[in-house]
Amino acid sequence: MIAASPALAGRLERIVGPSGIVQGADIGPRYTQDLWGGDRQAASRPSPWLVVRPASTREVAEILRLCHESGQPVVPQGGMTGLVSAGIPAPDELVLSLERMNAIESIDAAASTMTVQAGAVLQEVQERAEAEGLMFPLDLGSRGSCAIGGCISTNAGGNRVLLYGMTRELVLGLEAVLADGTVVNGLHKLVKNNAGYDLKHLFIGTEGTLGVVTRAVLKLSPRPATQIAAFCGVASVDAAVTVLRRMQAALPGMVSAFEVMWDSAYATILPLRDQVDVPLAGRHGIYVLIECRGSSPDADQERFVAALSACEDVLEDARIGDSSEEVRRLWAVRERLALEALKIRPLFGFDISLPVAEMEPCVRDIEAELRREWPHVELIVFGHLGDGNLHFAVLTGETSMEKKLQIEEIVYRNVGRYQGSISAEHGIGFEKRPHLHHCRSEAEIALMRRLKQALDPRGILSPGRVFTT
Amino acid sequence: MIAASPALAGRLERIVGPSGIVQGADIGPRYTQDLWGGDRQAASRPSPWLVVRPASTREVAEILRLCHESGQPVVPQGGMTGLVSAGIPAPDELVLSLERMNAIESIDAAASTMTVQAGAVLQEVQERAEAEGLMFPLDLGSRGSCAIGGCISTNAGGNRVLLYGMTRELVLGLEAVLADGTVVNGLHKLVKNNAGYDLKHLFIGTEGTLGVVTRAVLKLSPRPATQIAAFCGVASVDAAVTVLRRMQAALPGMVSAFEVMWDSAYATILPLRDQVDVPLAGRHGIYVLIECRGSSPDADQERFVAALSACEDVLEDARIGDSSEEVRRLWAVRERLALEALKIRPLFGFDISLPVAEMEPCVRDIEAELRREWPHVELIVFGHLGDGNLHFAVLTGETSMEKKLQIEEIVYRNVGRYQGSISAEHGIGFEKRPHLHHCRSEAEIALMRRLKQALDPRGILSPGRVFTT
Repeated sequence: MIAASPALAGRLERIVGPSGIVQGADIGPRYTQDLWGGDRQAASRPSPWLVVRPASTREVAEILRLCHESGQPVVPQGGMTGLVSAGIPAPDELVLSLERMNAIESIDAAASTMTVQAGAVLQEVQERAEAEGLMFPLDLGSRGSCAIGGCISTNAGGNRVLLYGMTRELVLGLEAVLADGTVVNGLHKLVKNNAGYDLKHLFIGTEGTLGVVTRAVLKLSPRPATQIAAFCGVASVDAAVTVLRRMQAALPGMVSAFEVMWDSAYATILPLRDQVDVPLAGRHGIYVLIECRGSSPDADQERFVAALSACEDVLEDARIGDSSEEVRRLWAVRERLALEALKIRPLFGFDISLPVAEMEPCVRDIEAELRREWPHVELIVFGHLGDGNLHFAVLTGETSMEKKLQIEEIVYRNVGRYQGSISAEHGIGFEKRPHLHHCRSEAEIALMRRLKQALDPRGILSPGRVFTT
Repeated sequence: MIAASPALAGRLERIVGPSGIVQGADIGPRYTQDLWGGDRQAASRPSPWLVVRPASTREVAEILRLCHESGQPVVPQGGMTGLVSAGIPAPDELVLSLERMNAIESIDAAASTMTVQAGAVLQEVQERAEAEGLMFPLDLGSRGSCAIGGCISTNAGGNRVLLYGMTRELVLGLEAVLADGTVVNGLHKLVKNNAGYDLKHLFIGTEGTLGVVTRAVLKLSPRPATQIAAFCGVASVDAAVTVLRRMQAALPGMVSAFEVMWDSAYATILPLRDQVDVPLAGRHGIYVLIECRGSSPDADQERFVAALSACEDVLEDARIGDSSEEVRRLWAVRERLALEALKIRPLFGFDISLPVAEMEPCVRDIEAELRREWPHVELIVFGHLGDGNLHFAVLTGETSMEKKLQIEEIVYRNVGRYQGSISAEHGIGFEKRPHLHHCRSEAEIALMRRLKQALDPRGILSPGRVFTT
């Protein structure tokens, strides 16, 4: 282990200047904690020995060249809003924070592209696009602090994947720095480009293990003129899937969100009637929040209501939100129940995806198997049904690491059995690393290692994340 | 050079059986020619020494393991409809034809996925999806013979990229065999999957240089209920872009094609009035073919006409096709002029993409520079405006390889200067390899080489395609 090498620190300071260095007691929680707060960020854990804050791609390249030469492990950091501990530094790791590289460099409204530095905050990107009459469709709860570089490195998903895709689909070109300091400038602005390998995929969703994203060309979309939503009660996931299919067929290119909540999740907001506008009078097996976006203020609402009416045979109740204020209220229910679910302690949280038809049986099997060991287990389930993505919390009362692994093993084994993914959008990091084999084959993991070896032969970038090397 | 090793041929025959081997005079043009017919397929050129036709992934793996051990170069082949000579074998190369692995293995209508072997022909995949009430949106002129594995290896584009994306966006999971015979099974069926690296991008658009695609999970779409088109005349590319933007804003998620033809391209069909239904009475600077797909037979036509009427200030003429027969007739114009253009000899053909705003100035600059050397040069230009993709033919009367390179240099230098791509959809292969540097940086090409070295250290897979190793 290399720790606190004064010589290396001095050389790094010559690259970034004094304001680019944070060390010792000045290294606050901004550099040591993420949103999830897993085991790797116990308060008692020593801080990383050094934080370096470059101001340019050239500085990033020089830093990495030095670290590569000296075998110094490095963890790149964005807004630290991850949920799998990938950004949390070990004591011997150097933190490479992109926070000073936060400029929106240019926007090309005619081409619908924006060029940004990796540290740019998502909400600022969204607002800048809106100021040009456009939209950057990526949207997450952590929009106010997450950085674009982190969104790219984790291939972030969020609320509007159904219509606009994940971050991967929203990136046209990337500039990244390899472990040895090589700058790979691929800031292409083209939708169609088959001139050689599409290298950006090496850096999207690879959690900082193959390179450091420094700049990106983002794809912007036209802003929708209308937004309409409905909060509905149905009997089952099957019924919800029927509604989804019919709405997508009736309103092609318009269904922007299709969120689902099990009754156990909905129940978390019922005690909060004074703070939350509980949308439906009765209780149902499953609740769905459908959002549509369109361009015809005159016609869209009528089309939406007609499409919903054509689902009457499976809808038990529905409330339509046809003003932006009403739409916001319906979303507030969905966002609040996610927050309430995360407040419950102790819980173990999951982010899985499944073929839509397997969602209900898989969750049922998981619950049944957990119930054999923990008869009073509770599952709070919600997620993005349209994408096959479920988030859920398992409440057993257990707190130990051993029991956590046992519960995860049960969940992920079942997810694997149903051909699902143990991580729909959060990534693997350290948190899910022991379980990767449930959804990726040995040959796949070996190929990931081969790529890592090729791009980062000394293993200095985000070591130990995703898989062991 | 290894040529005609009887020992290796014998070992390969033990893997695939006698019906899996083609050699000597039996090796016909099916294995030696592609659609383009570049310099690498002169009739006088010796055939490859052996063609191997495996019937299973296991056989592909055994073949590659043997070839890897003995350093035998291999070129995988699909339907041989490529345009950059990537599939054309050198005499010392072994052809690995996937033609016997052409099964559609399964279709999951609920999940909208289809699992196919690499040799499956695109049109059969389309028809099988249609039989289930779904659609596989990829569509190319060569649909009747191109293989899915080739479409994936070249990230094929085609007629409907605007709405459905390129092949990359239509593949959920892949099985591929690495150069050393390792089978990487990644036949995932999930839209959202952030569990580790998304390895399929190593094999999509890399032209068979990093692995052999053997099976794929394809993403199917709902079939549109309506299809409407219009053939319009406008004054300029700017006017066409205005029409595109307005139509996309008015009909979100519905504009499925937006083809553009310069007057020079349109002129090729005018002598064929007895065979082609020439759609417009007069002549215009630019012609566009707009196609929309929707789900409301009652409303779509009215919306389409209303959206088009809102472009009256820039439209000089328009003919609407509102029956499937009429839509077919309008497409026939576009497809026929592409064929007519390709028939002209001698010509040099190009497939470039540009930021939409740069299309007109870039083509003007190319033409001006060519005109200085060849005062009577003609450019026949058409393409997919919505994607920024132009195909064009340069007619100079030149036929020599030297002049070809000189003309390519002029075209690609200008494309690079306008931040375009020298290959929007056809790939690089051998044909465009000398020009890759015009749109990809040295660091990018070095990174491609690094990947090649990691995945195929002995360089046996499609050697020399895309870049020199």
